[in-house]
Amino acid sequence: MTESPVPHEPPIYRRIADTLRNRILSGELRDGDRLPGENALMAEYGVARATARQALAVLINEGLAVPRRGSGVYVRLFRPIRRHGSRRLSRQQWSQGRAIWDADTRGRPYTVDEIHVERVPASEAVARLLDTDDVWIRRRRYSIDKRPVQLATSHFPADLVEGTAITAIDTGPGGVYARLGELGYSPVHFTEEVRARMPTPQEANLLKLPAGTPVIVICRTAYTTGGMPVELNEMILDSASYVLQYDFDA
Amino acid sequence: MTESPVPHEPPIYRRIADTLRNRILSGELRDGDRLPGENALMAEYGVARATARQALAVLINEGLAVPRRGSGVYVRLFRPIRRHGSRRLSRQQWSQGRAIWDADTRGRPYTVDEIHVERVPASEAVARLLDTDDVWIRRRRYSIDKRPVQLATSHFPADLVEGTAITAIDTGPGGVYARLGELGYSPVHFTEEVRARMPTPQEANLLKLPAGTPVIVICRTAYTTGGMPVELNEMILDSASYVLQYDFDA
Repeated sequence: MTESPVPHEPPIYRRIADTLRNRILSGELRDGDRLPGENALMAEYGVARATARQALAVLINEGLAVPRRGSGVYVRLFRPIRRHGSRRLSRQQWSQGRAIWDADTRGRPYTVDEIHVERVPASEAVARLLDTDDVWIRRRRYSIDKRPVQLATSHFPADLVEGTAITAIDTGPGGVYARLGELGYSPVHFTEEVRARMPTPQEANLLKLPAGTPVIVICRTAYTTGGMPVELNEMILDSASYVLQYDFDA
Repeated sequence: MTESPVPHEPPIYRRIADTLRNRILSGELRDGDRLPGENALMAEYGVARATARQALAVLINEGLAVPRRGSGVYVRLFRPIRRHGSRRLSRQQWSQGRAIWDADTRGRPYTVDEIHVERVPASEAVARLLDTDDVWIRRRRYSIDKRPVQLATSHFPADLVEGTAITAIDTGPGGVYARLGELGYSPVHFTEEVRARMPTPQEANLLKLPAGTPVIVICRTAYTTGGMPVELNEMILDSASYVLQYDFDA
């Protein structure tokens, strides 16, 4: 049944990493627990320091552990946020005055701890997409359990939303989609483009990401019945904090 | 309009990186082109070597450039594959004997250069999801333009598919979903869970990933009309090669 070589017996550092990973994923080691140090692994497995270090590096690279300078390597587990693509954006959700974010957190307390709203010239790509020279942008940072998890920047065609609550810090009940609806531009269709990459230094700083943690980038465009794009929201997510879920039929 | 501090003038290495990024994204610098070296940046911007190095590191971290030992830093641009969640899995697609992958590549030649099929005991999580002790797994590696871009491992309840072409290297026209249909278990609903993380050493090796390139992990479950899960496909994607697209209505 095999047409080409498959993985052979993994090297010893991988097997040590596998054991530690199992202890983390089984719940034996919990968020914030200290992993066995290099000396402990050397003694337990009879390996060289470099091998012990490699084993720990595997878990750090996978985002399951984080080194603290001079102190050791600690489990970094965070109950991820399940971000449900279709359900959270259902008309029912926002037409009842609920915030989109509520569906993500399932009751966990979240905060918008930074918000910045301004009218600026659109970048070339945004200008083309939204067919506008200027945009009103809304930049937010979201935190859950006091941990920053997402940066979001929404862009709106400036002339469309000028003078509405979309340009205010508080957009009122139902948020920006309810306001767009009042203008006669209810979003009825969404496209999300999802990528992953390493963060820029500024993103790493704002999201307080440990080294080696990628970000998920979601560009969501909201369209009206007529197919007019009325919002572009660029979201930068701490990859260790999120699972995105999308459901669709065949 | 501002409630909290916003980013100030970026440091010089960021501005150099921004300039280089614009030259890449505008198409002035192309895939495989050599970026200006540290010496050239030092001369052009009147900065220290460490600053020039930081600027290049930003682009490397973002996956836009890759260092080659002793030779410099090169643009790493790859026309990303647009992986369209709902359209590619539409019943029309696979019921006409076309492979799912075709919709991704839009005519670009791709190859399955490794395939491995075997019956194995299911992991605890897979056993629970598929309600089975054993699974038939199909491991593949996909390449486009001779570049490995995806590892995929499909899991099927072993007793369900035993003796069918799903356990063969060549699954026949329409692939595994057509074969499931013949068994009376047509998939009609899909759930995709999307995460991002750093690759394991084995994944980095199989996908030939440069250091600092994350992977996107997609776990797709296929369900029958009765809500029975009949396949779990775990896909590991080179994040630099993919844009995932999902469409849905409000």
